[in-house]
Amino acid sequence: MRILILGGAGMLGRKLAERLAAAASLGGRAITGLHLHDIVEPAAIAAPFPVTTAVGDRAVSGVAEAAIAGRPDLVFHLAAIVSGEAEADFDKGYRVNLHGTLNLFEAIRHAGFRPRLVFSSSIGVFRGPFPETITDDFHTVPQTSYGTQKAIDELLLTDYSRRGFFDGIGIRLPTICVRPGKPNKAATGFFSNIIREPLAGHEAVLPVGDEVGMWHASPRAAIGFLIHAAGLDSALVGPRRNITMPGVSCTVGDQIAALRAIAGDRVVARIRREPDATIQRIVAGAAWKFTPKRALDLGFVADKSFSAIIEAHIADELGGRIAA
Amino acid sequence: MRILILGGAGMLGRKLAERLAAAASLGGRAITGLHLHDIVEPAAIAAPFPVTTAVGDRAVSGVAEAAIAGRPDLVFHLAAIVSGEAEADFDKGYRVNLHGTLNLFEAIRHAGFRPRLVFSSSIGVFRGPFPETITDDFHTVPQTSYGTQKAIDELLLTDYSRRGFFDGIGIRLPTICVRPGKPNKAATGFFSNIIREPLAGHEAVLPVGDEVGMWHASPRAAIGFLIHAAGLDSALVGPRRNITMPGVSCTVGDQIAALRAIAGDRVVARIRREPDATIQRIVAGAAWKFTPKRALDLGFVADKSFSAIIEAHIADELGGRIAA
Repeated sequence: MRILILGGAGMLGRKLAERLAAAASLGGRAITGLHLHDIVEPAAIAAPFPVTTAVGDRAVSGVAEAAIAGRPDLVFHLAAIVSGEAEADFDKGYRVNLHGTLNLFEAIRHAGFRPRLVFSSSIGVFRGPFPETITDDFHTVPQTSYGTQKAIDELLLTDYSRRGFFDGIGIRLPTICVRPGKPNKAATGFFSNIIREPLAGHEAVLPVGDEVGMWHASPRAAIGFLIHAAGLDSALVGPRRNITMPGVSCTVGDQIAALRAIAGDRVVARIRREPDATIQRIVAGAAWKFTPKRALDLGFVADKSFSAIIEAHIADELGGRIAA
Repeated sequence: MRILILGGAGMLGRKLAERLAAAASLGGRAITGLHLHDIVEPAAIAAPFPVTTAVGDRAVSGVAEAAIAGRPDLVFHLAAIVSGEAEADFDKGYRVNLHGTLNLFEAIRHAGFRPRLVFSSSIGVFRGPFPETITDDFHTVPQTSYGTQKAIDELLLTDYSRRGFFDGIGIRLPTICVRPGKPNKAATGFFSNIIREPLAGHEAVLPVGDEVGMWHASPRAAIGFLIHAAGLDSALVGPRRNITMPGVSCTVGDQIAALRAIAGDRVVARIRREPDATIQRIVAGAAWKFTPKRALDLGFVADKSFSAIIEAHIADELGGRIAA
């Protein structure tokens, strides 16, 4: 099977490509080729099948068509302007997250093949006030432009799938934590920063209060979701093709307590509190308590706890070592 | 105040214009001008203020800008490709119902004024399986392209309003019944046809079974919703700017029973049963039982019963006369 990853230079795209290279197959089918596409050049990876890369802006005419020219059997659409940037730059967010996605969907429709398409949506499609727990039929009324764009993409994915233009599955990812590498422009970046940076011996800024909650998934769990979605039987999914992923629900205070238990007070002392009203406003009303029944019924598997998320980070990114 | 009606040649647009002309004011403010815009020439109406008309396709560059050039204080956006046509012509539906709306919103944003914008959404944004009754926080996962386009427009309206580009209110209209005039391409048209045509002495085709239910509002009630939405205090509405309108919940069997009670067996005998699998599929899973708490709290008023809907039609459209 031929696979395309849009957003192949991003953190999830790179990890997904590495996982596919290591497995060499997906759902029992041998992978015969992988194409990585992004707005910046994706890193080459070693794999037992040909890997090609391309750079382009899907909001520009012809780019989406070129990206899918190989008629992949499976498309992972992970490319997006992140929440903070989509909020700061209205036009850029809509250009990439709405029109870029629409261009991709139209390119596939007009090319006339029918791939499985796995789309990374976000729990940012939800916004409070919330009930005690958010069930699978709760309405999506975002209060960020990013969440709006993801919710629109979900609707398009459902309609294009219903029409038979592709076979889409949208997965609403929790906040990815602990996100490795440099901080990005996501407003939710600090949830990772306050774990990753102290473990590496660096200071991290905490812009919100301890009471702020979030719905977390490790990169390892998120890659698991993507792979699982790729192989799902669409007859089991039915017409509601966007599914809230399972996660770990905890507050910033819970995160810090887990970090303290694993790494000690000296590491926790590297967290510096510096309130930021804008970030507080964005994340304070975020969704963080879910009952993701459909995802669990369909076999998606979450991290076991926030401690397990930290331990996965230490194992996968730090070679088992914490900076004393 | 200056008012723009997009979709001014449509049934609701025309009735709204006539109501505004008769009232001469809205929410205590005198109307100083009315501009009617549509894809076909709107009929001129007599009014105590200047009325202008224009024809254009908002999906074409520059047309939306021209339509709002008078910087209206209030915009009614009622223009859309109806459900049956949007399902039959995928490109046309998206071009008008998504891109046409987006062009309008962008035109207002770039013009830099901030009108109240009342948007006619639809209960077509919902699709079953449903709970016993649909509450205001039920998710919008349409299974028609029309419903998809309306749900996307709702999301855009919320985000553009949140950003301060305009002050939007979306009202999810029930099926309009009894719709006067000729049948249009809406898949739900028969709900009106089976009342209107027999009352006028003509045969009507019923393409679905008696058990099919719908959520109804008379044209009179719908115009009331639009006028009420125009004057709503957005502080009371809050960030969730799309509101399910109240209606009358009944089955086709209930409709026919009400018609029989008002007009007798001879009129009912003009209904001819001719099942249509496509229409049955579209309407059989439609939403028809709601608890529209927010709308009621905000003062929207529904018809009292389906009999009242028939009586309103006989009074408003037939001069009180039924064809024997």
